[in-house]
Amino acid sequence: MPQTLAEKILQGRTSDPITGPGQIVRTRLSSVLANDITAPLAIKSFEAMGATKVFDPEKVFLVCDHFTPNKDIDSAQQVKVVRDFARKMGVVHFYDGGDSGVEHALLPELGLVGPGDVIVGADSHTCTYGGLGAFATGMGSTDVAAAMALGETWFKVPPTIRAIFTGVMPEHLEAKDLILLLIGKIGVAGATYKALEFDGPLISAMDVEGRMTMANMAIEAGGKAGLFAADDKTLAYAKAAGFADAAAIAPDPGAVYEQELTFNVSGLSPQIACPHLPDNVRPVEEVADVAVDQVVIGSCTNGRINDLRRAAELLKGRKAAKGLRLIILPATPKIYKQALSEGLLEIFMDAGAVVGPPTCGPCLGGHMGILASGEKVLATTNRNFKGRMGSLESEVYLAGAGVAAATAIAGRITHPRDI
Amino acid sequence: MPQTLAEKILQGRTSDPITGPGQIVRTRLSSVLANDITAPLAIKSFEAMGATKVFDPEKVFLVCDHFTPNKDIDSAQQVKVVRDFARKMGVVHFYDGGDSGVEHALLPELGLVGPGDVIVGADSHTCTYGGLGAFATGMGSTDVAAAMALGETWFKVPPTIRAIFTGVMPEHLEAKDLILLLIGKIGVAGATYKALEFDGPLISAMDVEGRMTMANMAIEAGGKAGLFAADDKTLAYAKAAGFADAAAIAPDPGAVYEQELTFNVSGLSPQIACPHLPDNVRPVEEVADVAVDQVVIGSCTNGRINDLRRAAELLKGRKAAKGLRLIILPATPKIYKQALSEGLLEIFMDAGAVVGPPTCGPCLGGHMGILASGEKVLATTNRNFKGRMGSLESEVYLAGAGVAAATAIAGRITHPRDI
Repeated sequence: MPQTLAEKILQGRTSDPITGPGQIVRTRLSSVLANDITAPLAIKSFEAMGATKVFDPEKVFLVCDHFTPNKDIDSAQQVKVVRDFARKMGVVHFYDGGDSGVEHALLPELGLVGPGDVIVGADSHTCTYGGLGAFATGMGSTDVAAAMALGETWFKVPPTIRAIFTGVMPEHLEAKDLILLLIGKIGVAGATYKALEFDGPLISAMDVEGRMTMANMAIEAGGKAGLFAADDKTLAYAKAAGFADAAAIAPDPGAVYEQELTFNVSGLSPQIACPHLPDNVRPVEEVADVAVDQVVIGSCTNGRINDLRRAAELLKGRKAAKGLRLIILPATPKIYKQALSEGLLEIFMDAGAVVGPPTCGPCLGGHMGILASGEKVLATTNRNFKGRMGSLESEVYLAGAGVAAATAIAGRITHPRDI
Repeated sequence: MPQTLAEKILQGRTSDPITGPGQIVRTRLSSVLANDITAPLAIKSFEAMGATKVFDPEKVFLVCDHFTPNKDIDSAQQVKVVRDFARKMGVVHFYDGGDSGVEHALLPELGLVGPGDVIVGADSHTCTYGGLGAFATGMGSTDVAAAMALGETWFKVPPTIRAIFTGVMPEHLEAKDLILLLIGKIGVAGATYKALEFDGPLISAMDVEGRMTMANMAIEAGGKAGLFAADDKTLAYAKAAGFADAAAIAPDPGAVYEQELTFNVSGLSPQIACPHLPDNVRPVEEVADVAVDQVVIGSCTNGRINDLRRAAELLKGRKAAKGLRLIILPATPKIYKQALSEGLLEIFMDAGAVVGPPTCGPCLGGHMGILASGEKVLATTNRNFKGRMGSLESEVYLAGAGVAAATAIAGRITHPRDI
């Protein structure tokens, strides 16, 4: 019977015939990942289970990106646990120091994840790889420990919500605006244990980076996965990254969806997720009077080269508002170097930005720009829960890179066309 | 009667005739500074004293550089205290965010400190400005609070140790090696409440950056100040930085010194301060078997452009050793931009370095590279007390930028000529 993207990708890694949502399937995993926060927990469980080796040292990815370069003794000890485990297990893809970056930007760039993969990671934004046509989802550290040992796990096949994006993409709109629009519509629990499948002419036209931005935030609607078909763009991206044996994947005609939603974005304004939930979404005009203390451009959502280019377009020859801290964190060393060679870092510095190393930084309250009480930030990150980036009395607004750059210049939340 | 440099500079800011060491003099201050760690304490004292305004809003410098971009909520709150105070007092030179950098690199570069100044700062490495012919010293936050309010303080005129550097400077030697040699000789309390006055042909030949590196570490021998005459090089530096009215200053012939030490550096090897004191100094050959986990290039001691150029010479076309974390922190935004435009950042990235923003970083255990137990670091910083850069079970070795770069490449402490 015709399959959705979720069903089709899972089918590729299981011998159980998938017939529809709700079915429990045992699935071979393409890869398993954890980071410097979650890996130590996973390692503890791994050892408690009596496991002595990982299922495949080439397929367990350990990326230290949250509190690195280490912000304190505790985080240094945590990375040490991961480093020692990686050495003991012969883990090939352990990243720390100068070759590390934000995991969900790094692994696609290195060709370690790609179309058709089924991936679990001890990080909620593992769903990012859905932008490449992978079924990728976050799991708790204990489940990930078992997955590291076994190379397999079980899934309940999720029902799918199909989200179709049509219309004429307005000049200043970005992929981020489309996913914020969706989350605002269905709410933070709107896709709980469901797959989101993105389709429509705007999705076909979108580059792979934009698709990863959208897939990244599927979890902000509760989604188990956020999926894009693997088309020629995906294959070109995967090939350039060195991902072996990429093949196109599309949902079958006639596949059954729990729901279909169509979004016509013609004339849409940039979208802002306001405190304190990602579904508290409003058009930029409605919050244009909000002064912010800090702007952060980076993260697994919007720290890629196109995001930096977009920000640089607006920041070129301009200055961040007096008193506003502008922090820009290229998501990987490769992106950092690319931005350097294109002159973007120079533009950022001239605009008064702090350019930091590849790290998750303040996104989850880690380091490199934590907020004091009463402060407001506009960030290109993915989650604005209360206290997420610092004090419980601080506020986080989420937007795309263009709005972030415009806001940095104006000192208050601003539509890019008004700069 | 003939005066030492210390006496002469102090004399310029007091109406009491200075006759020799031990005398208490009341001195008008050129400027007063504090940072994000010490300013909050000073502000508390300032308010407890009932002070309501700073003596001169143009002469109180507040530089947030230790835990910035803020590493956690506590540090964000501390910076907020400083920011609010700066606003209330109309402090002109408050630095935070993209225009901030390591205070002792930033203030000279901005022309805010210079020859003939008498400066107190709530930071022990305030003595750095001695490299420009300023009498500059660290004080506790309470004394600095009073100084912020009054614009004056008292000093006991220090006796002076004159340190003369002669001989032929070996190819790989740096200013850092000369000051480490001195500290190794006289010990960490060898100059307690004394001025160190540097002289000799190698000092005359040394650039101003090198002199600041040496002055910076005067405190590591207990020195109240580390002083260099202001000569043509100093005046050129001060003029280029925009420091107004710089005039040459030299000690009087016949000035009385408590002690004169002569160091002939011909044939000297690079010097390494070994754990856990800056006076535990050995030639590089004696520690050449020590493997390190991390190398840090930066700080108020050796984070200036010449240090980065020196490191880049060695790192160009080479890679940091596998598993070693190389962290490079240009000390100010200007230095960062200069390094960027000269291609140094690209060299560092290609070598696998993490290039961080201008911050004190891990030097005093702040952030951006803290050590776990059992780890060893070689750093271009100034102090290697037990636990200074992280775990009490970690070890810090101090050296110049050349040794640091060579060590990063080799993975163990290495003489630059062996790379």
